[in-house]
This record gives sequence, C-alpha cells and structure tokens, in this order.
Amino acid sequence: MQTANSIAGVYKPGNGDAFQAINPATGEMLEGIFHRAGKSAVDEAMQAAAAAAVIYSQIAKDQKALFLRTIATEIEAVGSLAVKRASEESGLPHARLTGEIGRTTGQLRMFADLVEEGSWVQAVIDTAQPNRHPMPKPDIRRMLVAMGPVVVFGASNFPLAFSVAGGDTASALAAGCPVIVKAHPAHPGTSALIAAAINAAAQQCNMPPGVFSLLYDDGYDTGALLVKHPVTKAVAFTGSYKGGMALLQLAAERNVPIPVFAEMGSINPVLLLPAALEKRSGELATSLAASITQGGGQFCTKPGLLLAMQSPGLEAFITTLAAGIRQTLPVPMLTEGICHQYQHHSAGKLAAQGVELLAEAGETAAPIKYPTRPRLAKVSAQTFLRSPDLQEEVFGPYAMLVVAENMEELQAVTAVLSGQLTVTIMAEREELSLHAPLIRQVSQLAGRIVYNGVPTGVEVCAAMQHGGPFPASTDSRFTSVGTAAIYRFARPMAWQNCADEWLPGELQSGNPLNILRTTDLTTARL
Amino acid sequence: MQTANSIAGVYKPGNGDAFQAINPATGEMLEGIFHRAGKSAVDEAMQAAAAAAVIYSQIAKDQKALFLRTIATEIEAVGSLAVKRASEESGLPHARLTGEIGRTTGQLRMFADLVEEGSWVQAVIDTAQPNRHPMPKPDIRRMLVAMGPVVVFGASNFPLAFSVAGGDTASALAAGCPVIVKAHPAHPGTSALIAAAINAAAQQCNMPPGVFSLLYDDGYDTGALLVKHPVTKAVAFTGSYKGGMALLQLAAERNVPIPVFAEMGSINPVLLLPAALEKRSGELATSLAASITQGGGQFCTKPGLLLAMQSPGLEAFITTLAAGIRQTLPVPMLTEGICHQYQHHSAGKLAAQGVELLAEAGETAAPIKYPTRPRLAKVSAQTFLRSPDLQEEVFGPYAMLVVAENMEELQAVTAVLSGQLTVTIMAEREELSLHAPLIRQVSQLAGRIVYNGVPTGVEVCAAMQHGGPFPASTDSRFTSVGTAAIYRFARPMAWQNCADEWLPGELQSGNPLNILRTTDLTTARL
Repeated sequence: MQTANSIAGVYKPGNGDAFQAINPATGEMLEGIFHRAGKSAVDEAMQAAAAAAVIYSQIAKDQKALFLRTIATEIEAVGSLAVKRASEESGLPHARLTGEIGRTTGQLRMFADLVEEGSWVQAVIDTAQPNRHPMPKPDIRRMLVAMGPVVVFGASNFPLAFSVAGGDTASALAAGCPVIVKAHPAHPGTSALIAAAINAAAQQCNMPPGVFSLLYDDGYDTGALLVKHPVTKAVAFTGSYKGGMALLQLAAERNVPIPVFAEMGSINPVLLLPAALEKRSGELATSLAASITQGGGQFCTKPGLLLAMQSPGLEAFITTLAAGIRQTLPVPMLTEGICHQYQHHSAGKLAAQGVELLAEAGETAAPIKYPTRPRLAKVSAQTFLRSPDLQEEVFGPYAMLVVAENMEELQAVTAVLSGQLTVTIMAEREELSLHAPLIRQVSQLAGRIVYNGVPTGVEVCAAMQHGGPFPASTDSRFTSVGTAAIYRFARPMAWQNCADEWLPGELQSGNPLNILRTTDLTTARL
Repeated sequence: MQTANSIAGVYKPGNGDAFQAINPATGEMLEGIFHRAGKSAVDEAMQAAAAAAVIYSQIAKDQKALFLRTIATEIEAVGSLAVKRASEESGLPHARLTGEIGRTTGQLRMFADLVEEGSWVQAVIDTAQPNRHPMPKPDIRRMLVAMGPVVVFGASNFPLAFSVAGGDTASALAAGCPVIVKAHPAHPGTSALIAAAINAAAQQCNMPPGVFSLLYDDGYDTGALLVKHPVTKAVAFTGSYKGGMALLQLAAERNVPIPVFAEMGSINPVLLLPAALEKRSGELATSLAASITQGGGQFCTKPGLLLAMQSPGLEAFITTLAAGIRQTLPVPMLTEGICHQYQHHSAGKLAAQGVELLAEAGETAAPIKYPTRPRLAKVSAQTFLRSPDLQEEVFGPYAMLVVAENMEELQAVTAVLSGQLTVTIMAEREELSLHAPLIRQVSQLAGRIVYNGVPTGVEVCAAMQHGGPFPASTDSRFTSVGTAAIYRFARPMAWQNCADEWLPGELQSGNPLNILRTTDLTTARL
C-alpha cells in the first residue's frame, strides 16, 4: 500500500504532520503512516488538473466510458483487500463493504453507460432562418460541457461508495472533469488502495495524468487550500452540517465563486397517519426499527424523527418499536470523534426537559472500543415546538418520536421543520385525501417523498433525487446519487453560426453520435 | 398611472422617501411621485408570495399558460402608452421600445407554449422491480417542481424585456414561482404600467393575489430586504458587476443560502484572425461599428474588446472601423449616473499610458442632457497585459482594439481574460485549423461562441445560452435568455412508491398529459 499523496499519477510523500488510521472496534493503530499534503502538493495537483482539463474534457465519449469501466475492473481486482482494510478502518462488517464495492463499481459502469449513450449533454439545436423578418435568425446549438477540475471530499460513512471512487468522483469524471480527492482521514488505507486502482486505469487508458489526484490530511488545511484554489471549479462533499457549512464559507471567500455541493444529512421525518398505525402498527414498527439501526444508523436517510397523533394504534406501535430497538446490538462507530459526538448529542436530547427515553439497546458480549447504542426518545408536540434544538440531526442510531394531541399540533410541528433529504408518509390509501393539506405541506420540505416504505436504501438510478432544501443540501437543484448527479459538473455552452466540422460531434448536423437531441423544438435521434 | 407599490394586487403607498423619474434626453422631471417601499411593504409582499406559492405551484399547466398569455395581451393593450413612457424615462427611441414590447410579449407566449406542452419538467420514471435480488427495486419518479417566491430586479437597459414582465419574471412565473419585482428607479412609470397589466391578468385568470408584487425604491434598502427575506427562494438580476456582487454578498449573509442569478455583463472579446481581416476588412469593420454603438452600446453583449495581430488587412480594418465610429451620433444614456460612469470609465481607460483614441463620434445638433459619445481606443498587447484595469467593462458605446505582434502575444492576451457572455471569432474557414489551440482556449471563456457574426442581438430561443463563466454571470450553469431560463427556478423532487392518483399528472402511469418523459431509460411520450 502506497501511503504517499498521489499527484497526477506520481506518489509524493507529504511534508506535513504524520497520522495513522485507527480501528474503531479495537482502538488499535493500523499500519501505514500518512502525511498531510500541504500547499505545494495542492498547487501541484491543481496545476496538473488544469492541464488535464483541456484534454480530458474533449476526449471521445467512448474513451471516457472505457476509463470509467477500467476503474471499476481495477477496483474489483483489489476488492477483497479493500474490504478488509475498510472494515478495519471503519468498523463496518465485510458483508456491507462487499456490497459497497458492488455499488461503487455499479455506479462507475452506470456512468460509463450514460456517457457512452451520449444524450446526457442535452443537445438543443435551433437552425437558421435566413429569411425571417425583420431579422434573420442565426443557427444556434447548445450542449453541456465540463466545468473543469472538481474537488471531492471522501465521506466517512461510505468508505467506498462515497469516497475516493464514489458517486461524486464517478459523476465528475463522467462529466469530463478532472478530480482531486481529499481523502477522509478515517480511512486513508482504503483511499490509497482505491487511488491505486484509478491510477492504473488512467495509465491503461492513456488519460492525461492530472485527471486524478489524492491528497491526505487529518486536519482542515489541505481541504481549505483545495476549496480556495483558483483552478477549482466545483466542490462535492457528503458529511456533517458543520463540515458542509465550513466549505460553503471558504468558497464564499473566493474571488471567483464556485458551486459547493454539500449533502449535509437530515432527520428524515416519518409521518405516521392514524389508519396506517391502527391497521399495521407491528409491520411499521419492525421496519422502522430496522431502518433506524441499519448500518449503525449512519445513513444520511436514517429516519430520525417519527411524527404521530394520539390514535388507537399508537401504543402498540410504540411497544413494538421499543422492543425492536432493545433487541439490536451496539456496533462500532466510524471514529472515536463521531462516537463521542453520538454520545454527547443523543444524551443532550435525552436530558432536555420533557424528553423520555423509550428504549435503548443492550451491551454486546464482546467489547467494542467506540460503540454506539441505539436509542429511541419520545416527546410531546408541545415540548418539541418549544425546543428548536430537538430538530438537530444526531448522527447514529437515534430517533425521536413526537406525539401530537391532534392534527393542528401535527401541522404545527411539520410547519417548523427545515429542509430534508426525505419525508416518509405511512398512510392507508383512504386517509390520504383527509390529510391532503398536511401532505402538501411536508412534501415541500424534501427532495424525495417515500410512501409506505423506509427512506434508507437509496436506489442508484435515473429517477433518484438525493438532495433537498437547505440544510439537507446546499443546492436543492441537484442530486448526489443517480445518473442526474452528473449535471452538477457541467455547464451549457452555445455555438452560433459555426461550421459543421468545427462543432462537437454532439451538435453536428448529421448527428454522427446518434444521440437524442432537440432540433427546432422536436426531440428525436435526428 | 398608479404610483403606489403593488402588493398582491392591492395598491399601497410606500412611506419612505419620494422620488420621480427623469428624462435623460432633456433632464426634465417626469410626472408621478413614487415612494420607497420599506420593510412593512416587503414583509407583506413576501408573506402573500409564500401563501400564493402553495397554490400557484400546483395549478394546472394550461391555467399557467393562459395566465402568461393574458399578461402578454394586457401588455399589448397598454403598449403605446408604455413605449411613450419608457422612451421618456430611458431616452431610448420609440422604434426600439416597440420592438421590445414585441420581445416581451413574445417571451411570455414562448414560456406559455413551453408550460402548456409540459415536457420541460424532465420527468423520469424508474418502475419497480419487486423480484430483483438481493433487494427489490422500488418505484421512483422524479420531476421538476417550483422553488418558491423569486425576487426579480428590473434592469435599466431593457425597460420592458428585462424589467417588470421581462425574461426573469416570465420564466419564474412559468416555473410556478410567485414573483416580487424591485422596480428599477430609472423607469418607475413604465414599471407601474406593466405591473397593472400583470395585475389585470392575474385577476382575470383567478390567480392567487400574492403571485405578483411590485415595489419601488430609488436606493438599496428595499432590494436588500427582499434578498434577505426568509421567504425568498431565488434572486434574478441583470446589471453591473458591482450591483450583482452586492446581491451575492447579501445572499451570503442569509441563514439559508439561495441562488442568485446575476448576469453582470462582459466585454465580449472579438478575435479577428488574419485571413478574415485580409479578405473582408470592410465588412467586418462596418458590422462591428454598428454592433458597438447599437442601442447606445447598452447591450450586455456589446463587443468591447477587439483582438487582432499585425497583419495585411489590419490597417484597412482600423480605418473603416474608426470612420464608422466617427459617423455615429451620441444618444442619451439611460440615467445621469450611468452617463457619468461612461464618461469617467472611458476617459480613465483613454488616459492610461499607451492607450490611443482612434475615433470618437461627433456632437449632435440637438442638445442631449446626458449623452454618450461612441469611442474607440487602441492599445498594444504588451500594454494590455501590463494593465489589468483595461479589461474592466465600460458600459456604453466604447470598445478597445488590442493589437498583438504575433500569435504568442495574442494567446497571452486571451489567457488573462476572465469569463465572458460571448466570444466572437472572425475567421476564414481555412485558418481555423491553424489557430485551433487559440480557439479552444477562448472557447473555455464564454457561454456562447459566435462565428463570423456580431454578439449583439441575443436570439430568444431554446438553444440560447446567455450567461457565462464568472464574472459574466454568478452561475454559468444557467441562462437568463431563452426557454432554458426556466430551469433557474425549479428543483427536482422524487416520489417513491406513491399511488398513481397521488402523483402529479406528469408522473402518472398513463401519461395523461402526454409529455415526453424517460421511463426505464427510454425517452418517449409513453
């Protein structure tokens, strides 16, 4: 395993402070000494990215697709090694991480398909009308082009699928942008293994070396330098509200503004309507207990807030849900710091006046160095309305049930909620009309509305929207999961009165790439 | 003419300082006393917009289209009155403003067509795969929905087509967003006439009253309150770099970030390649002289920078261009302030060491109170490279010719240019390959590349891109002209596992609205 910074395909040791990864299950230091990258490494990586951008943004789409597929193949080649190391670094089980390898390579191949098919550039052609009165109409053709170098921050909770070669990297490379990854300090070894796979693919596919770099830092300086670098054209981040807002602030200090796509999580409210509670309280409670604790409660879409009215099915629901939480076992949290935050924040909520602990998971037989015990709290709507802090996300297997006396109270609660990645509605079909105003209200809060399902398990597909009104994400107009994630890293460009041979293939009159495009308002492969 | 603020269809006098419009051609005060809106008016308009947003975002697309068309009809009804008043307030001639009425109503009808057709929402459907292993795939459907209330700043240089009912308002209303316009203080009377037309249309079409408000202020306070109001979801602005950056700064101070779409103009470089200069110097010079001075040089896409190498055709080009500039006549500038800025900034450039005045227009026989005389400057590439200030936009009929000794110098000049709305390339077909690296380089600077034409005359169509890398605009991923301008004001939302009757018509399984959508990766009207 190469522990040096990977700059445009060349390994260069950082000259900053050293750090090592720690196994959160055991507390042991893991092999491999990493060094903070610092200013000269950042400059070198960004200059190489700027040079690569000119070439990489213009290579043929099939070449780009081949590059993405080769990365997937190379990741599979180091798959078992990466799973082992990622498990040591994150405390996540092998089965989950093996699944994540599949998701990571699946995403890369999905973007390869998208790029190869080619229509994603949204080509629009308005042909000339030289005889139009009073003015002739010129020929204008527009398509999306790559924005330039993108800085990606590896996420702690998906050491593979949202880290070095995760969704952000895959979508930026697909758009034609070089990528500079700031490795998450919790899994530098996993990051090194995946970076080597990307480098091998770049070499095999003759990509310009600056198309990819990986820099380490267990502090904030390298990340700040990357965000503020003049060459950087966009930033992608998945993590905490605090982390995302710090990056947004850094970007606001730039002379040239750039988009920061920070997916900062949310509490993903679940609305439990009375008829559903009465008819299937057991099923709802069981599936929600599983969703709250799944993957150690580390998913961005973990349901952290359950909303119900006093109703006949509520008590049975609470009993089954509490039992479900009690039956789960603690798992290691990703890092010591995140573990302490979970303890601190969940304990803080539970210490607030009027908040009741409904259930807590037991202890494991085998000791865990940095464990998180699933917890379920309960509070009245009146108390919740008086305590804005209760709305803050607790990262980990914690959820709070808010009980309203009636519909007015429930509407008052939903009215104070901020933006969310998801809102879930558990309802019988016949009660939807009855609660239409409430459903209309909560729907405005979120990027995705889930009916009678759980919000965890974010499907990677064309229709997915993962991103919602602030503070769920910094730009609700984009998604960070699914093929539409590519649109974060492209901008439209128009050519006016350009000779056919000087247009990109996507816009040439014969449609040589056979893509779907809109010509004089008609969309077809013409 | 109603001079009171128009708040959700009701006229309410402002209680701030009074102001009147001034005719820039004569200096006379125009009838109508307007008052600054202030905080309570802003609150009232925004609360009404918030209430209207819930209803207006969900009305049927045909109703929305009818509303847009009725606005167009109502504007035509006050057309000659509006042209007369706009001419008095802006100094622009009747013929130009009559054309602008046509552009304004044309835009409204174009967005009506877009909304009525319906496919703009980019509906994507991934159907369920209940038997997929290891996990079933849920049904997920995504489309664009309205962002909520949009604040629009009227622009001085298009008192109709980019003011109260201009492109920003038309695209925001088309997206389903209520609009609150801050009237430009240079044309309050024109603003009042157009607001009355919108109000009449809203009433005829039974729109929620908060769908439109118009507020006056000849200072900055009302605009600042609008940008910072919690209900505001996006801001649209066309104007100066200073003005756009002030709005961006105000938005950065908000608790909840919102997008600011500021189109801040640019100097629109024109690259004059040697063979083109040699073959058709006269034609190029004549069309550029017209483009520089058209509409008093007030267009965002006025060519402000001409780039050429020493070559056989250059002297003839300069002679004809200088003659063209000398033959034009001064016209009134939009306001006293903008007139003084033009004098100050063009004089400042001309006073810089190494800058030569090539030509200046004569005086008019009839006196103009606030005139601008077209001016043409010349500078060497070396001097231009040493003087970053020469790159600043001069708003008005001013252009600077930069003469390079050779290709290296020309490339050095284009390398220091910042983002632009347009770049124009005047070239013979056979010399394009020769200069491919230079063309690739300048193409990265702009939102639109014009070949052998002039950048003024921005076509309103589907393929138009009006917006470019910063500082041309604050978000290069969007356009402010053409149908794609609607995408500034919409965000994607996904429905998971939702019963058909609870989905918007755009996503229902039978495709009742017959729109183009993508189902399981196939795009069709299915």
